[in-house]
Amino acid sequence: MGTTTPRSPLETPRAVVHLGLREVADGARAARVPVTEVDFQPPAGGDPRRLRQLAELGEPARAEAIEAANRLALERFMQSQPHLVGVGLAREVVPGMADDLFLHAGPPIAWERMSGPLRGAVLGGMLLEGKARDPEEAARLAAGGAVRFEPCHHHQAVGPMAGLITPSMPVWILEDRSPAGGGRRTFCTLNEGLGKVLRYGAYGPEVLERLRFMAAVLAPALAAALQARGPVDLKMLMAQALQMGDEGHNRNRAGTSLLFRELAPALCRTGRSPEATASVLEFIHRNDHFFLNLSMPMAKMMLMATEGIPRASSLSVMARNGTDFGIQLACMPGRWFVGPAMPVRGLYFPGFKEADANPDIGDSAITETSGIGGFCMAAAPAIVQFVGGSPEDALETSRRMGAITVGRNPAFAIPALGFAGAPTLIDVQKVIELSRLPTINTGIAHREPGVGQVGAGLVSPPWECFHQAFEAFVEHARGA
Amino acid sequence: MGTTTPRSPLETPRAVVHLGLREVADGARAARVPVTEVDFQPPAGGDPRRLRQLAELGEPARAEAIEAANRLALERFMQSQPHLVGVGLAREVVPGMADDLFLHAGPPIAWERMSGPLRGAVLGGMLLEGKARDPEEAARLAAGGAVRFEPCHHHQAVGPMAGLITPSMPVWILEDRSPAGGGRRTFCTLNEGLGKVLRYGAYGPEVLERLRFMAAVLAPALAAALQARGPVDLKMLMAQALQMGDEGHNRNRAGTSLLFRELAPALCRTGRSPEATASVLEFIHRNDHFFLNLSMPMAKMMLMATEGIPRASSLSVMARNGTDFGIQLACMPGRWFVGPAMPVRGLYFPGFKEADANPDIGDSAITETSGIGGFCMAAAPAIVQFVGGSPEDALETSRRMGAITVGRNPAFAIPALGFAGAPTLIDVQKVIELSRLPTINTGIAHREPGVGQVGAGLVSPPWECFHQAFEAFVEHARGA
Repeated sequence: MGTTTPRSPLETPRAVVHLGLREVADGARAARVPVTEVDFQPPAGGDPRRLRQLAELGEPARAEAIEAANRLALERFMQSQPHLVGVGLAREVVPGMADDLFLHAGPPIAWERMSGPLRGAVLGGMLLEGKARDPEEAARLAAGGAVRFEPCHHHQAVGPMAGLITPSMPVWILEDRSPAGGGRRTFCTLNEGLGKVLRYGAYGPEVLERLRFMAAVLAPALAAALQARGPVDLKMLMAQALQMGDEGHNRNRAGTSLLFRELAPALCRTGRSPEATASVLEFIHRNDHFFLNLSMPMAKMMLMATEGIPRASSLSVMARNGTDFGIQLACMPGRWFVGPAMPVRGLYFPGFKEADANPDIGDSAITETSGIGGFCMAAAPAIVQFVGGSPEDALETSRRMGAITVGRNPAFAIPALGFAGAPTLIDVQKVIELSRLPTINTGIAHREPGVGQVGAGLVSPPWECFHQAFEAFVEHARGA
Repeated sequence: MGTTTPRSPLETPRAVVHLGLREVADGARAARVPVTEVDFQPPAGGDPRRLRQLAELGEPARAEAIEAANRLALERFMQSQPHLVGVGLAREVVPGMADDLFLHAGPPIAWERMSGPLRGAVLGGMLLEGKARDPEEAARLAAGGAVRFEPCHHHQAVGPMAGLITPSMPVWILEDRSPAGGGRRTFCTLNEGLGKVLRYGAYGPEVLERLRFMAAVLAPALAAALQARGPVDLKMLMAQALQMGDEGHNRNRAGTSLLFRELAPALCRTGRSPEATASVLEFIHRNDHFFLNLSMPMAKMMLMATEGIPRASSLSVMARNGTDFGIQLACMPGRWFVGPAMPVRGLYFPGFKEADANPDIGDSAITETSGIGGFCMAAAPAIVQFVGGSPEDALETSRRMGAITVGRNPAFAIPALGFAGAPTLIDVQKVIELSRLPTINTGIAHREPGVGQVGAGLVSPPWECFHQAFEAFVEHARGA
């Protein structure tokens, strides 16, 4: 083979290898010329400014420094050891929490720009905290500045969908038990279950009653069980769940089941009445997403370990508040790059349609930021029945995400990809170079407050976030 | 394309399409001729007698009758609705059980021909039942006819590995709740867990102590919980478990987890002390194979629904006693076709090797007979780490088994195969025609009594069973 002379392309005029613009291929096909399509896009979509910037970042010394920073980020990410250590009240355990402070999903936002489901959750929070007697009063007070709003992410916390954390809510407490972790903690509320729930913007009596049961019965029982049992290694549970059809974002049946097994014997021994213990077990059993509120703060903790590494081009946050989508880079923690939250492509529950849907919302994209969720779709082929698509699409999504990430996480192996590790740490350079956005699995909330979930599907962040972040990273890489 | 004239093979002398004997391909390769290998074997290995018999069965009227019978068998199989309804003592609930009767896995066998692990289990059973004071006395009495031995399968029961059921053992009670099921029941012991256990031929004090705990604490608690909760739909649990990385034979972590969730709240409410309930939950939690002893009698029940259909060429039983492998056909229930149990190809625990292994043993091949286990390997890619091979092998095994089965069972969908149903009901005609044996996942027992499990792997039945069964089927098809 080594001796054959390659033909010039000009000698083979009757076939076209198609690398880019669809029109070229269509034209060739119209002329009945055979077309070989190759998944190729010119770097950065051919944008001259981006090409210059990528070339600048690609200069050997700089590229080497960035690569070393990303390797360090991946190393610290993998060294992190998130354990579930307890349950406490937000006002008592979440850093910086205050009686007049409500935390929410996504980047910062004022009441005026809040989406329907986030407003709905805020109304529910006002009622739950006894700050208002009815939804109308709650809305008036919220608009009038009676409470302050800050992102969960500013308080080492995360929350699914609206992501509301109010002072009296119980939260999971996670601790990094690795030597380098320094006892870092992250926090998340307990998952309420399905149907009409606060995180999807519902705030009716049944929503508030459930939240009160969770604070009065569920949380103290779980706290006592964890105290008796000792910490639960969440990476271990997540790794097992990925072998059992979960991807840790839209499918959490295995994680929930494994956590249930870990906690049930200790729950029996908390000294509660058998009926109280049974009611706690039934609450968890009825909700296959119970583990989501642990996979999220687990992801947050591993990503916090990457923050503050100069020149690291990996993302440490992706989060949405229902109006805006925000991302952060590991090399400049705390700085948001924001664009509009996008519509979700997915399947709707009977009776609902696309026009009912709020744009993308929730901190749960922290799972994709950490390499699970949409990035591990190949681990959860059953999920395609829930968000649309085929099992082959699930494999393809995980493969495609591999190209925009820093590396593989062998601790989270995907069986259907020959036990390859989860594609981990999104690299803003690669997103720009390949013009390929992250794929996120998500639930869909109704756009009006008070309704709840209407479907589930796939979504990507807006390009704005990545272009801003890339510009900032180029600046940062010059200065660092 | 329709207008091109196919070339004669003689016009293309420089390429070989290889359909059979490896030597042909090797010869062609040696002559540097391109070889295209196709997975092809001549029908029935080219055996003239088998070809005549297949032709006879293939006569239109007869073939149609057989096909209709197999369709009916598959229909009855799928209509069966196995539910877990209770726990009872073998002597009180297993039909035909008696105080001097020990049930065992596989086809009938006398003490003299029993393998080491089966003998070990019998010794443990003698001690457990108080029929002997020490293993020596137990062996003397067992050899002297102090107890009778019969297959579990003769009593609507199944047992993993040695499969011993003695009169005082607790057993799961399953009931067919379909209209056509007529309240049919099947039975299986409760799974003991890992390590030194009776089913692998161990009979030391810790084995007997565990069996006594199971009878005194575990079984009554489960019985009370099931009475309070009501029946558990096992097909529903199995279908979910197949979406969660189980295949229902060598991997049962998901099934065990889902069952645990179903039973835990009811267990709390049985009026036992919290400590007793916790000890029961911990016993189940420690044993990821707990669900195996339910997937087996579930499979047995669905297969019993196929028994007695004239002309059905599907298998209703595959079972091994450690010495012999026996199969039964749906059209002639109760008649065994027996050959020697085969060595298992697999991975060994540290310190053990092939020479330590007993041949294939246990009724658990009832799972493959029902389309799960090895036939659903594609649902459990993680299992290849346990039995050897790659995830691609797992997919291939499920595909290959599809060719020797009557049809697909949509109730048991395999995500990695685009949600295709489990390949179900092994057709003795297809096994002979394609010269392809069923693949069975299995544990490996030490060949000496008293040791226990030494590994896990893959095994096939001996050809003898299928040749005898096929001869009998040809006779049956003539007469029927």
